[in-house]
Amino acid sequence: MKDHIGIAEKLNRESILRSGGALLRSRPNCRIGIERESLRCTACGMLSEAAHPASLGGKDDNPYITTDWAESQIELITPPCESPAAAHRFLEMLTDIVLRELAPRQELLWPLSTPCRLPDAGRIACARFEEAAENTRRRKLREKYPVEMLLLSGIHCNFSFTDEFLRRIADGADRKAVREAGYLKTARNLQRLLWFAVGLLGASPAGTTGISVRNSSAGYKSACSAQLDYTSVAAYCESVNRCLETGLIAAPSELYTPVRLRFSEKPTGGPVEINRLELRFIDLNPFEKCGISAADLELLRLLLFHCLLTGESELERFSEDFETVAENGFTPGQREKAAELLKQLGETARLLHVEIPGALEGAAGRLHCPEHSYAERIRKAGTLSPEWLRRAETYRDDALAEAWRLPGFDELELSTQCMIREAVKGGIHFEVISREDNILRLRKGTRREYVVQATRTSLDTYVTPLLMNNKLVSKMLLREHGIHTPDGIELRPDDDLADRLRPFIGKRAVVKPVSTNYGIGISVFEHPATKEQLREAVRLAAGFDRHILVEEFCPGREFRFLVIAGKTFAVTFRRACHVVGDGVSTIHELIERANRHPWRAPGHHRPLVTIVEDEAMRQHLALQALDFGSVIPAGEDIPLRRISNISAGGEACDATELMPERFKRIAERAAAAFDAVICGVDIIIPEPLGPGSSYAVIEANFNPALLIHEFPFEGKSRPAARQVLIALGLLDD
Amino acid sequence: MKDHIGIAEKLNRESILRSGGALLRSRPNCRIGIERESLRCTACGMLSEAAHPASLGGKDDNPYITTDWAESQIELITPPCESPAAAHRFLEMLTDIVLRELAPRQELLWPLSTPCRLPDAGRIACARFEEAAENTRRRKLREKYPVEMLLLSGIHCNFSFTDEFLRRIADGADRKAVREAGYLKTARNLQRLLWFAVGLLGASPAGTTGISVRNSSAGYKSACSAQLDYTSVAAYCESVNRCLETGLIAAPSELYTPVRLRFSEKPTGGPVEINRLELRFIDLNPFEKCGISAADLELLRLLLFHCLLTGESELERFSEDFETVAENGFTPGQREKAAELLKQLGETARLLHVEIPGALEGAAGRLHCPEHSYAERIRKAGTLSPEWLRRAETYRDDALAEAWRLPGFDELELSTQCMIREAVKGGIHFEVISREDNILRLRKGTRREYVVQATRTSLDTYVTPLLMNNKLVSKMLLREHGIHTPDGIELRPDDDLADRLRPFIGKRAVVKPVSTNYGIGISVFEHPATKEQLREAVRLAAGFDRHILVEEFCPGREFRFLVIAGKTFAVTFRRACHVVGDGVSTIHELIERANRHPWRAPGHHRPLVTIVEDEAMRQHLALQALDFGSVIPAGEDIPLRRISNISAGGEACDATELMPERFKRIAERAAAAFDAVICGVDIIIPEPLGPGSSYAVIEANFNPALLIHEFPFEGKSRPAARQVLIALGLLDD
Repeated sequence: MKDHIGIAEKLNRESILRSGGALLRSRPNCRIGIERESLRCTACGMLSEAAHPASLGGKDDNPYITTDWAESQIELITPPCESPAAAHRFLEMLTDIVLRELAPRQELLWPLSTPCRLPDAGRIACARFEEAAENTRRRKLREKYPVEMLLLSGIHCNFSFTDEFLRRIADGADRKAVREAGYLKTARNLQRLLWFAVGLLGASPAGTTGISVRNSSAGYKSACSAQLDYTSVAAYCESVNRCLETGLIAAPSELYTPVRLRFSEKPTGGPVEINRLELRFIDLNPFEKCGISAADLELLRLLLFHCLLTGESELERFSEDFETVAENGFTPGQREKAAELLKQLGETARLLHVEIPGALEGAAGRLHCPEHSYAERIRKAGTLSPEWLRRAETYRDDALAEAWRLPGFDELELSTQCMIREAVKGGIHFEVISREDNILRLRKGTRREYVVQATRTSLDTYVTPLLMNNKLVSKMLLREHGIHTPDGIELRPDDDLADRLRPFIGKRAVVKPVSTNYGIGISVFEHPATKEQLREAVRLAAGFDRHILVEEFCPGREFRFLVIAGKTFAVTFRRACHVVGDGVSTIHELIERANRHPWRAPGHHRPLVTIVEDEAMRQHLALQALDFGSVIPAGEDIPLRRISNISAGGEACDATELMPERFKRIAERAAAAFDAVICGVDIIIPEPLGPGSSYAVIEANFNPALLIHEFPFEGKSRPAARQVLIALGLLDD
Repeated sequence: MKDHIGIAEKLNRESILRSGGALLRSRPNCRIGIERESLRCTACGMLSEAAHPASLGGKDDNPYITTDWAESQIELITPPCESPAAAHRFLEMLTDIVLRELAPRQELLWPLSTPCRLPDAGRIACARFEEAAENTRRRKLREKYPVEMLLLSGIHCNFSFTDEFLRRIADGADRKAVREAGYLKTARNLQRLLWFAVGLLGASPAGTTGISVRNSSAGYKSACSAQLDYTSVAAYCESVNRCLETGLIAAPSELYTPVRLRFSEKPTGGPVEINRLELRFIDLNPFEKCGISAADLELLRLLLFHCLLTGESELERFSEDFETVAENGFTPGQREKAAELLKQLGETARLLHVEIPGALEGAAGRLHCPEHSYAERIRKAGTLSPEWLRRAETYRDDALAEAWRLPGFDELELSTQCMIREAVKGGIHFEVISREDNILRLRKGTRREYVVQATRTSLDTYVTPLLMNNKLVSKMLLREHGIHTPDGIELRPDDDLADRLRPFIGKRAVVKPVSTNYGIGISVFEHPATKEQLREAVRLAAGFDRHILVEEFCPGREFRFLVIAGKTFAVTFRRACHVVGDGVSTIHELIERANRHPWRAPGHHRPLVTIVEDEAMRQHLALQALDFGSVIPAGEDIPLRRISNISAGGEACDATELMPERFKRIAERAAAAFDAVICGVDIIIPEPLGPGSSYAVIEANFNPALLIHEFPFEGKSRPAARQVLIALGLLDD
């Protein structure tokens, strides 16, 4: 034990600085995980009596979304993240997902730690779990504590130093000893400074002076706080055992102390190791959608590093009673002490490189203007003020505004973001193992699956996409399976062009290079082509590939059939970008207006792409005797391009229900021709669409976009990402 | 029937020419398949008494290689090919494969139709099949015919016009009627001209005048030839039935006529259709490795088209008795007639576009100088002359000279050629469905598999290669599986370079871009690197990827482990290209000499690649205080490069046996980390190689080259392609 104290002393900032301050800047230096509790409330601000939404997965095993004590007390859990910013982004993602799920039920998240309006106590249900022990535990808590106290919600923050960081600053000392000494020193120092943190973050006012009812003597905490001994792991365990023996608590989980030591899972018999500190004193900040700001998380991180790196005798100087502060706020003396601490934290911040600027400045502002503190602002409005409902609505609207976006993951492809959203809702543990390549690792129970770009999975074999990638092989396989594809020929470099093109002269035709995509090098003759036109088209295509396809032109609308595990799950058609006239605006102005739609942006981070005025569009307008300056009569619909690709500004429209079953079966057979499990089949069908229509399968795609089905510009959204997870056996149908 | 004759008349060249001669040039216009029989003989020219090699697969179901009547009478069968050249190339491939298999057994293919020296008749075994009926049939033939006759070998050519060709020239007539009329007319005309073909191709002399004993009245043919009626399908079937009823033949398969009508498989009850003509009169040409020249195949094709397109009354003028010609050669009058026919064929050739020039000229040469005819040249030497053994040896040596090459498929990757070779040997039906992408479709029984580039198969899932393709993900997965990879860090664009590079200063290190391959942008510091060197290396790598890996340098030799279905099947190491001095030559001269090795050529169509003198090599020599003009002492080994890639002139050496089991297990675990079934694992192991050595897994490859194991520059060849087919369930282990 003496040794630990010795090591703890060595962890002082000064000694580390002597051996190279850069050590402190090595990243990642910590892991932060957040648990946020919040009450679900109705649109009127009453506690919801509805069950936890089934669409958020089973509470028993969803690692991200569950319930705390009450059925309507939702709990959001982030995994350990590398920084306050990352943890905050993850929490925002969980918050947004929950708010989006609650919105159609007319439910909101109550933003305060103190409860919203409550029905009769008898109507407040404990959370119902499948595991009986969970239900028993909750029933016992109800017997022991008042319901209002059980409904007090807050934020828990799990904090750990990385082993790598501890190793680097430990200067050769035994790793286990360093870890133990470091956490215990931090915990002891943190006890000394709890008043400071509670004073700055308290947001559950009570009476005229209380700033954090949760941390007050009336708060929801166990009586044994004062009994815990942080001098060593052994001493700590002994003190916990004393609490259990004297019946102060029924189980270690009931150790409702503001700071709790957390240990690694006890391997049978072996000694346990501290692996994190759990901060439990944080009130929900109603001025934040997530219940806590990233800046306050950064403040807490700095505080913990400060506790690790500062001598205990130094911080003992600052020690105050936190319950008193929770009940009365800072005294002028404490305010001065707090200011000095903030200054010290500033020094620690300089050493560690602060990630979120303003963390200390924000705290200083609240410190120096008490009326700006969270607790005072809340007290002023009243804890049941309609303001909180308005805020809850604002947070919901914010979540709905960019429904396709997952905070923290928004540089991933949108289809991958859809997959993450469904994984979170379904309680599937996910890791983004490559952001560049959009690779997810998904786990549920003993199943483990990798998913690349949302639809590249172990369900398909290595060869399926390679077969689809070759236009000639694709056509051959489709025809062998009795599926119609456009009639045509393959031109090879030494072919007699005159002879081979002859059958296409005077017909509608498509000329395209065998191996390119996205419409590059393709000529489409919607009207009969002349010999010269065909030769010119071949010359164009030859610039992209030695081999060229000449095919009959199939008129009609091109539909995308999403086939998953043998079944057509969704159908959309893409409409080329277009504008509808108003009798006043020019095409240019109409395009500008269309581009203001919130779904449109350059690149691929929204469901639609900005419409760009380019040469191809100019030509397409010229064919209609129009230019960008033309004013279009009201109601007239002007197509801006021939191609309907989303990347060219096209729009997806759901057609799942109106599509005759026959074509769904054809799409399924097309997928089967490649043994494909997840497949996008493009079929041209002439209008009017009827079960007897002719058709031509254009191609099968091995990495079909889910987005166009999830976020159609028109028509019903189809949960395609969820269906992929079902096919993977990670979700039940 | 009258209608058929009417259509047959319409098929005349003149009427087709009137409606546009280009019709005739449309390709493909025919399908040609060849069956070649040949006796296996010993190095001394005696008939082999050894069993058909088991390495050539089961005779019962190998579609390419089987036996005819005798166990030592091998039969090679090509599928229907688009042209004489393609059929000939396929036949050459089969011939080469068989010759390569026979070589280690000291066996050859006897090049003549007439048998080699034979042991006592009692020692000549009928071919043994698993199917009893096959054995019974052979036993009955032995009872009926003399053994010498049964051993007469020849070539059968299956010829069909494509439906598309018949359709185009038929000018709207009923497709089935055109087909029937066309084949019957061709068969009738061919009967008239058989003497011409036998006279030009005969190569089984007998006595002083006989040019084709196989086609003589003493030949191996059934007595019913003259009884067959070619006026209609019904008449033909009736005449065959008469032969059966009168006991002339026991089964239609015994219809040993020079030309046989072949019918589509009879669907239960329905009428059969002619689908090809089988030419059975062709003797083996001993002056050709394949037993027939491509030019003679072209001659036959022209003859068949001529028979289709020429009026019957016109060709009736040319009719002669073919047996008389077989027994006596051409009379002067026949020679004149033949010359006129050749001229007519020349006209047909101009209409059809001849693919193989010289076909007619060669025939004319033989016609005009009888001593140049195949039969006369053979007669002059004698049918048992040692010359034929020497020729057989030459053909074998030719097959062995480029053992990695498959004629007709030599623009495919060598690994894919290995797969085709093993498919042929194993009796697996194969199609190259894309030459550009090296895609094979393999079938055996009810199994059907696609193989891309030899190792991309349905055994692996879609995600496995995507995981391997990402260096960071790969490293993570390997480490999670307890496999050592080089320690290192990933630099990201906004990293503090000084801080992150610090641990590597003064150490041996590798700096590389995350996503490039083939050594591009990589710096290797085999000696401790300075801060400046590392920074420079990072600058270099940053030109290729935003993300850069800095890793410890692991000294040792890099081995490639080929893991198939959980087992390490082969191990090789690559040695950088090098030269060994002779005390006289300069490095430049030594490189020139090394490049003369038959395995080396530019590109990837031989097992090794030409050594190219470039700047990197100049620098590597400079490090050794050498340049291209340096003369190297005798026996001294000079490495020319640091990297050992085959594409950089490196050499593969087999190390399967010397590799300790421990590392094979590690490679298998590495493959398992990606769920990979076919996987190349690269492991660096320091020398001397021992089971206790340290190691570092560098990467796992999803498309491992089979070639380096099949054709190691040093050490034992490992049949990797065969192992892939075993893993696919297409071959038994």
